[in-house]
Formats: sequence, C-alpha cells, structure tokens
Amino acid sequence: MFNKTMQRLGEERSVIREIFEYANKRKQEIGEKNVFDFSLGNPSAPPPPCVEEEILRLAGVAAAHGYTSAPGAPEVRRAIAQYIRSEFGVPMSEDLVYMTCGAAASLVITLSAILREGDEVLVPVPFFPEYRVFVTQAAGTLVPVSTDAAFHLDLAAIEAAITKKTKIVLLNSPNNPTGAVYEEEEMRALGALLAKKNAERSEPLFLVVDEPYRELCYGDPPVYPMAVYANTVVLYSFSKSLSLAGERIGYVAVSPHCAQAESLFAAICGAARYHGYVCAPSLFQRVAAKCLGASSDIELYRTNRNLLYGALSGMGYSCIVPEGAFYLFVRALEKDAKRFCERAKEHELLLVPSDSFGVEGFVRISYCVPREVVENSIAAFKKLFEAYRRT
Amino acid sequence: MFNKTMQRLGEERSVIREIFEYANKRKQEIGEKNVFDFSLGNPSAPPPPCVEEEILRLAGVAAAHGYTSAPGAPEVRRAIAQYIRSEFGVPMSEDLVYMTCGAAASLVITLSAILREGDEVLVPVPFFPEYRVFVTQAAGTLVPVSTDAAFHLDLAAIEAAITKKTKIVLLNSPNNPTGAVYEEEEMRALGALLAKKNAERSEPLFLVVDEPYRELCYGDPPVYPMAVYANTVVLYSFSKSLSLAGERIGYVAVSPHCAQAESLFAAICGAARYHGYVCAPSLFQRVAAKCLGASSDIELYRTNRNLLYGALSGMGYSCIVPEGAFYLFVRALEKDAKRFCERAKEHELLLVPSDSFGVEGFVRISYCVPREVVENSIAAFKKLFEAYRRT
Repeated sequence: MFNKTMQRLGEERSVIREIFEYANKRKQEIGEKNVFDFSLGNPSAPPPPCVEEEILRLAGVAAAHGYTSAPGAPEVRRAIAQYIRSEFGVPMSEDLVYMTCGAAASLVITLSAILREGDEVLVPVPFFPEYRVFVTQAAGTLVPVSTDAAFHLDLAAIEAAITKKTKIVLLNSPNNPTGAVYEEEEMRALGALLAKKNAERSEPLFLVVDEPYRELCYGDPPVYPMAVYANTVVLYSFSKSLSLAGERIGYVAVSPHCAQAESLFAAICGAARYHGYVCAPSLFQRVAAKCLGASSDIELYRTNRNLLYGALSGMGYSCIVPEGAFYLFVRALEKDAKRFCERAKEHELLLVPSDSFGVEGFVRISYCVPREVVENSIAAFKKLFEAYRRT
Repeated sequence: MFNKTMQRLGEERSVIREIFEYANKRKQEIGEKNVFDFSLGNPSAPPPPCVEEEILRLAGVAAAHGYTSAPGAPEVRRAIAQYIRSEFGVPMSEDLVYMTCGAAASLVITLSAILREGDEVLVPVPFFPEYRVFVTQAAGTLVPVSTDAAFHLDLAAIEAAITKKTKIVLLNSPNNPTGAVYEEEEMRALGALLAKKNAERSEPLFLVVDEPYRELCYGDPPVYPMAVYANTVVLYSFSKSLSLAGERIGYVAVSPHCAQAESLFAAICGAARYHGYVCAPSLFQRVAAKCLGASSDIELYRTNRNLLYGALSGMGYSCIVPEGAFYLFVRALEKDAKRFCERAKEHELLLVPSDSFGVEGFVRISYCVPREVVENSIAAFKKLFEAYRRT
C-alpha cells in the first residue's frame, strides 16, 4: 500500500536506534543510573565553551535564523576553507565546501552525487550499519572488504576487490565501531594504490573519508586524506568534536586536486536539492565556523576508555585497544553476538551486536557516557563473564 | 562521470535560488538598499520573543544538543499532538508526529513513503517549483491541475484528473506563489470528492497539505485538513510562523483517521532514514514545542501587502489579492515572464517568473522584506510599467 522499501526500513529500524529506544524505556522503568546504556554515540562530554558563547551571541539576531545559500553561508564556507588550508596545508577553496545536516546527510549527498546504478563502494569491515542504507539509496552496491587482525587496512584485499565498477573506497577513521585510526603510512600506501588504479582507468576512482571523530584521537591525529590522494572527498561532522550530535551540522569538502572538482561539486549541490536539504541549520553553521579547531574534552573519553579496557581485558574479555573515537569493540562470549547482547541485557548492559556492522561475534560498547556509568557497569560485566564461565 | 540527474539538478539550480544568489552579489556591488530583492521567501519579521527566550534557556544545556529519537524528542512530539488536539479538535496521537528538517524534508519523506514508481501526484497550478524535484525523486509523476481565475480549487478539474495511478492530491494553502487560502467550503467539497473517489478503489487516495503559511492569513485561518478528509497528512514548518527558515524545523503529522496510519508512519520513519535525516535539529525541536501557537508579527506583512497591492494595481498592474502568505502574484507586462523579469532587473527589481511554478505570464513578488524596500521599489515598478507603455 505504501512504498515497500521505506516501510521495511521503518519497521526494521536501525539496530542501534532500536537499543537506544529500549534504553530510554528501561531507564524510565528502573531509573537512569541502573541502566548501563552503551548503545548510542551520543557525546557525553559537554560542548566546548565557544558553542554556548556563540549561541548566546546569535540567539536574538534574526538574520542568523534565516535561509543561507544552499551550500552554506559564505563566511562560514570561507572560514572552513581557511581552516583546512592552515591546518592541513591543502589549497582548499570555499567553493568546494558544502555545509550539510551532519555526517549522514553528507554521506547520502556524496554517494548520490557520484554513484550511478550498479557502481560499487568498497568499505573495510566492520562499518557503520547505515552505510548500507545510504549506498543502496544511491543505487550502488556496498562491497565489504576484509581488514587485518587489528581492523586496519588490508591493502591486498582492497586491491583485489577493485573492479571496473568500483567508484568509491569509503573509509571511516577514527573508526566506528573499532576505534582504529589508520596510520599515515597505511593511508599513504592506500593513496599510492588508488593512484595506480586510477591511472589505469578512464573514470576516476574516489576516496571518500567520513571523519566525524578526527579530533577524538588518543595518539597522533590522522593524516588529512586530501594529502594522500587527489580524488578525495572529506565528510566532516561537528557532532562529536563539539558534542552537537542532535544539531545536525557538518560539511562535505571536495579536494581541489580532485578530477573535475567543479562538476562534482555541482552534483553535490544537486543531490542535496534532490533529498530536500534546503540549507544546513543556519545558527549552527555559525557556531561551527566560530569553533573550528575547538573540541569537547577528550580526556573524559580517555578516562572511560582506560577504565573499561583495563577492567574488561583484566576479566578475560578480548578487546581491541581504541586509538580514537569512543567505542570499544569486544569479542562476544559466544558466537552469536545477538544472543550475547540479549544475555548482557539481563544485567542491564546495553551493547550493540556487530552483525549489522558487517562482522560477526563482536559487540560495540559506546563509552561516551558519564564515568559513573562505566564504573558501575564493571560489576555487571563481571557477572556476565562469570555467567558464561558457568555454562 | 558523476550522477547525471544530480549534476543537472546542481547546474540548473532552483530559479528562485539563482535570483537569490544574484541578489546577494548585486547588493554587494551597488549597496543593499538599492536592490529590490523580492526573490526569496526569507521572513523579514523577527521571530516572536519565545524563540530567543528558549534558545537562551537551552544554550548551555548539553543534553539539548544531543541526538533525539529519530521521530523527535518525546516531549516535543507530545506537545505538538496536544496542540493539534486542542487547536483543531483532531484526536491526534504523538505516535503519528514526525519531526523533520523543515517543509522540504517533510515533502521528500512523505512522498517517498507513499509513492511507488509511476504513481501520480495531482497538484493545482501554480505550485512551488521544487515540488517537481521532490515528486520525481520518489519516482512519481507530478500532474498539474488547473485552478479557477482566482487560483482557487477547480473540483471538476481535480475529479477529471484522478486516475487509478493517482495516489496523492498535494495542496499548499496559504499558497506559494499566489497567496490564495482555500476556503472551508471548498476544502470540505474537496474532502467529499476524495472520500467518494477513495470509496471506489482498493488503495487509499491521500490528501497531503503543505502548510507552512497557516499562521500567515489576512482573513480567517484555513480549516484543518484532517477535519475534511480521513487519509490526510499535514506537512508543517516553523520557518515562516517563527521566522526560522534557516533552522530547518517542521513536522509531518499523519491523521489518526488515516487508513493504516501506523504502517504509513513506519514508511515515513523509513524514508527519513533512507534520505539521511537522523533527527530534526534538537535545540529547535524544543524551541518549536515551546512556541506552538506563537507567530511573528503578521501586521508587518499586511502593511507590505497593502502598500504593494495598492500601488501596483493603482499603476495598472493586474494582481491577485493575497489572502495569506507573503507573495503577490502579478501578471507580467509581456507574455514571456522570464523576459519581463530581465527587464525588471534593469530597474533593480528582482522578481521570480512563474514558468517554473507551472503557469506562464506571471511573476512572484516575495514581500517579506523591510517596509522601506517596498516603499522605495514603487518608483521602480512605475518606471518599469512606463517603459512597457512606451514600447
């Protein structure tokens, strides 16, 4: 009776969102502090002070709430291009910056702009589950590519997976759900591989990097993707760096070195129009421009990471050490991660099974929560571990 | 090389946006007060005080900036459902309210949720040009339907245009670009017609009403669409009532009387996900809920309307009296409205030709501008009229 694709997507819902909704209900039932909600990547660190300052400054300025140009307010695009130039040494032009309603919008728009029916998008596993929805809506095919034991890039696997139909290699670094941050060396090697492959073909091969967690690294920050390969598009969101996940503000930046950058930018403008994105939220465009380079306090996440990684690996759980972002990727204690999550729920531990991320047998723990939640959860993780030892 | 549909949409751009961009450039060249920019429906009245108050209250509240549930924060949906119940007497449920990034997003999502390939959407002419883009993205076909001399509904034309493929009758009242507000009587007659047609078929026929201008009426407010027909979806935006056009906040409300309302709502959830709408901007969800029923000062628009309508019709222009919204629809002084707009440009009058709205020979004047702009433009309109008299 309605559109079947949409109805199915609506009825299935995102696994993460499903658990998030359950968590909200459960908190009302037994009290917030009794639920260990590790489901959603909703930043727990407060926004940096510049956010509140800029909101207060613009609250009563009527013009700050009006339409901007579709790609964004000119002064905002200029500030971002300037930031990319000075921070990463890329000769970025404001004409190649498109303000969006966050990372999901950036992905939908960019994939729609580049892909034609049947084009393939290579994505190292595991990957954010909505990537599949976004690639599919653009009539593309998502091709999962294996990674190494630490969930870093496997260049041989990427090379083997590239076909004539491959249009995009899509990365997410720092990675959700593993916390992996691709090293400069591996990114340069990837750039060299893509350049070689690109030279063999008539249509460009794109590197699209989704990097909302750029500022959330526990070691060195990642190399800027535009520095390693020409045909690069960076998708950025202020959701995590400024703790503004609900405000839906980010941007798409097309590398000035990109083949036919202007035409690609036109296609991005067209795709935004197609999907009904009139302009990115105007007040938060200004807030973002004012807060470039600022970040909420990563030390809060580092403390949680160290606490949780230390406690869980000490108990006998097998975890990947997160190099960035705020996720701990942990091996489930049975093969079926969904069943493991159901058993974790009995201890009020809300974890996300890895299946929809494209790998089996793991769970994602979002540790962007108050420290007390991490501390209080440790006993529950212990009980869960012991429950498995007994069976 | 890229997706052709998107590239074409990006290169053509919206006619309105094109003029808006020209206006911005021109203002920089010759000074803001010398350009009579009637291009965009960017509200000129400041937001009502509750907007600033609520922004100030929440600026420093970290949780107000985090993700909400995909359909919106529960308390926001509850407030809107309550408002619809008390204001319009419809037994609205919060479970049928979906918060969106404004009217364009509401349209894209609702059309995607309902339409299947080849389904037809009837739209009385003239209509907002982006309707065509939004219907097309959902693989539907937009079928323009003629209206009467005052651009009100022609029920016989609608009845004649309804085929087996017709899935939606899409209205916009108060209307952009004509300012027409459909009367209760004509809406009830439309409802009766749709109910009759609906009874003859197995699949429901929907009435979708896009009503961002509901509060901007110079006479009686329009009847609530859900009161005239069961299978109704209302698309609302706070862009105009609260002068928040850039903040992208609105909602979709499915009538509780709608056939399979829950399944339709699921399809709406799925469509939002498909297009990358994670949630509506969180701060402005709260602002909207706080300001239900409030409106920016319509008297400012009424003054402009009276000034402009009086002056232009006095000079000899033929105009429709706007009953709502903030547009004056005026007959061009030559057959080709685009050429007329080019000649108007010579007098720094920036008008939008009606062609992309689905009718020829008119121009749209957005009078949501400071009163001085209207006042100062009158001499230019006079010169333009005289220039045509001479030729």
